[in-house]
Amino acid sequence: MSHDVHILTEAELRAAVPLDLAAVDVVERAFAALASGRVVMPPILSMEIAEANGEVDVKTAYIPGFDGFAIKVSPGFFDNPKLGLPSLNGLMILFSARTGLVEALFLDNGYLTDVRTAAAGAVAARHLAPATVECAGVIGTGVQARLQIEAAHLVRPFERVEVWGRNTVSAEGCAADISARLGIPATSQPDPARLVANSQLVVTTTPAREPVLRAEWLHPGLHITAMGSDQAGKNEIDPQALAAADLYVCDRVAQCEVSGELEAAHIAGVLVEPVELGDIVAGVAPGRTSPEAITICDLTGTGAQDTAIATHALSLSGGRGQTIRS
Amino acid sequence: MSHDVHILTEAELRAAVPLDLAAVDVVERAFAALASGRVVMPPILSMEIAEANGEVDVKTAYIPGFDGFAIKVSPGFFDNPKLGLPSLNGLMILFSARTGLVEALFLDNGYLTDVRTAAAGAVAARHLAPATVECAGVIGTGVQARLQIEAAHLVRPFERVEVWGRNTVSAEGCAADISARLGIPATSQPDPARLVANSQLVVTTTPAREPVLRAEWLHPGLHITAMGSDQAGKNEIDPQALAAADLYVCDRVAQCEVSGELEAAHIAGVLVEPVELGDIVAGVAPGRTSPEAITICDLTGTGAQDTAIATHALSLSGGRGQTIRS
Repeated sequence: MSHDVHILTEAELRAAVPLDLAAVDVVERAFAALASGRVVMPPILSMEIAEANGEVDVKTAYIPGFDGFAIKVSPGFFDNPKLGLPSLNGLMILFSARTGLVEALFLDNGYLTDVRTAAAGAVAARHLAPATVECAGVIGTGVQARLQIEAAHLVRPFERVEVWGRNTVSAEGCAADISARLGIPATSQPDPARLVANSQLVVTTTPAREPVLRAEWLHPGLHITAMGSDQAGKNEIDPQALAAADLYVCDRVAQCEVSGELEAAHIAGVLVEPVELGDIVAGVAPGRTSPEAITICDLTGTGAQDTAIATHALSLSGGRGQTIRS
Repeated sequence: MSHDVHILTEAELRAAVPLDLAAVDVVERAFAALASGRVVMPPILSMEIAEANGEVDVKTAYIPGFDGFAIKVSPGFFDNPKLGLPSLNGLMILFSARTGLVEALFLDNGYLTDVRTAAAGAVAARHLAPATVECAGVIGTGVQARLQIEAAHLVRPFERVEVWGRNTVSAEGCAADISARLGIPATSQPDPARLVANSQLVVTTTPAREPVLRAEWLHPGLHITAMGSDQAGKNEIDPQALAAADLYVCDRVAQCEVSGELEAAHIAGVLVEPVELGDIVAGVAPGRTSPEAITICDLTGTGAQDTAIATHALSLSGGRGQTIRS
């Protein structure tokens, strides 16, 4: 029996799905659902294609209360820039959670992932950053450096931004983009220690395999969101910082143990007691307990966020895109 | 950077991709590649949605020498018939194996899976059935009962067919369809033991959880392909039959141990030495060694077959379908 499938391109999705509070709220709902224990989120399917310096990851999650579930395919082919193509691509497929029928194909080339990843950073900031953030710092200068700051600003309207990157020109470009986007001062900060010292909210957005943020830089009233680590071997935060913080939060403990900051901490023999972000959102576990507390949130990216943003995208799609009967 | 994505519907795929020797040959190539040890085929991603009596499986494989790799999503929602919808659905996505870009979306509702599953049966029959098959028997009366017989007839042009099913009306309907399709006599056989006795090639195509084919029915010069088991707990062939046969062949040992006939054999404590079909196709392991040998082939369905049929579908698509720039 044939049925309608909605197809939206990246350009149509960029027009339909902004990074705004509605996106943050729908991703927050997904985190709250994770705390219920009724979400079904299988381990990530991962395939390496060594001959092309490529890999592909598949994520999914079923969330009770959401009408659909997404399956997201994220290829990363790291020789693509030599061919004039982006390394990261992919698409999301939204299925009916009642019938399993394909409802929508989002040919987003990773755009919806960008939005849901930044939105998760805002959820972390909403529940963990100090109530007042004057300065936000970002370590890293890529797409997520820009989007994480933009998303965090929705929930903590800070007055200025500092950016650190290994490449000063990239850091200056990132700062200029952030300033233009948010209409606040944003500057390149050559010393990451000073960036952390000056900030109440720091986001790390790098693919680092050695820490870019040292434990001795921590200070009272600091929140850090580390969103760069998403694979075994990646590590942005000094493992000692996890032990030194008052609270270490994971998006999903099982994932952070193998692909997040918790992996490096375990290897270093650092003992931490992780709390899941969903438990904090749902009120099951306490978040920030004082203005002076030091908190760290480790985001590896979950299929639950994909299901949330794909459902959101369909609800916003309106008359956009094409419909194919199949 | 935008690129073209080809989209084909089920109707377009049915017109473009017949179940013929070309489909059998491309699936055979995939099996041969499995023997090379260079195929990357991750474990199946599987998610249960108990609240909707549903499940979804994701399969993929990278095969050196194929330009693309497929990711196949197969939802099965078993309350759908109550809603007037088919239980099985799904789609395939074909990616470039060089860049990871999405090349094609096949909104096939499971059609390409039907073709590649039947084609694998023909590969098994080609390498394992006796050179001369006068009568083919099929146990089960569904879509695969029809397609397995149709595919096997491409490589062993048998003269007649017997069909057994729990429901006689269904068996008669299946036999009539096969007869009309192949232009040979096909009849409903009320006794499965006699069906096996009369046949040199038997295909089992049921979702059985208790054996439908007994060890004492085996006879010299018999080949059995069991393609129904694809999940833990399913079992079509008496475990003692696996031990009694001269040769027991798996599409993939690692899969057959958890979701094929090998699972039940292991539980029953029956010792068998499985050989992979790809090794036989590639000439690495012997197949049928005499006209009298008894052989069994256990097919659970592999991501390699999906990559093969999706690549084949794109090559046959011609000007069909739509192209979306994304």
